[in-house]
Amino acid sequence: MKTLKPTVTIEYCPKCGWMLRAAYMAQELLSTFTDELNGVLLKPAEIGGAYVISIDDVVVFDRKEKGRFPEVKELKQLIRDIVSPEKDLGHSDRSS
Amino acid sequence: MKTLKPTVTIEYCPKCGWMLRAAYMAQELLSTFTDELNGVLLKPAEIGGAYVISIDDVVVFDRKEKGRFPEVKELKQLIRDIVSPEKDLGHSDRSS
Repeated sequence: MKTLKPTVTIEYCPKCGWMLRAAYMAQELLSTFTDELNGVLLKPAEIGGAYVISIDDVVVFDRKEKGRFPEVKELKQLIRDIVSPEKDLGHSDRSS
Repeated sequence: MKTLKPTVTIEYCPKCGWMLRAAYMAQELLSTFTDELNGVLLKPAEIGGAYVISIDDVVVFDRKEKGRFPEVKELKQLIRDIVSPEKDLGHSDRSS
C-alpha cells in the first residue's frame, strides 16, 4: 500500500563537501518526523554551491537565497509547519 | 533540467533502530556513486523488521529474504552492476 506522505529532498553540492551535513540533517528530520514523512532523499547537486531543501518539490530553504545554511531547529519548524502543524517540537519550539 | 539517473531507496525499520545503519549505507553509496545516482531515499518502513534496498522500485536486497544485512562492499557491487557496470570499485571489487 502506497502512502501519500510528503518526501523531503536535501540537494547538496558534493564538491563542496556537504554530504555529511546533508546526511546529518536527514537523520534529524527522520528522527523527529518518522511517522509523518515518506522519507528524505539525499540528492547530489549538479550545480556548485547548491544546498536546497524541498518538500514534494516545493523549496523551503535555499542556501543561495538565504546566504547561510539552515539551523536544525529552524529546519524542523519549517518542515513541521507543512507536514504536521499541530506537532509540538519540544525544546526545538522554544525561542533561543 | 531533470535527469533520468536512478534513485536508490533504503527502507528501514525505525523501531528496530536501523536508521543509523541506513544513513551510513546511504553515505557510502553517495560517496561512491555521486555522479551516477539521482540520490538515495531514506524511508522509514511501516512494517517491522524491514530493511529493503531498491533501485527505481526494483528490489536488490531484502533482509527478510536473505536473513542478514548486506555488506557495504556487496551492496556497492549490486548497485554498480545496475547503474554503472563498467565502473571499477577498487578494493571493493576484490574478493575478501
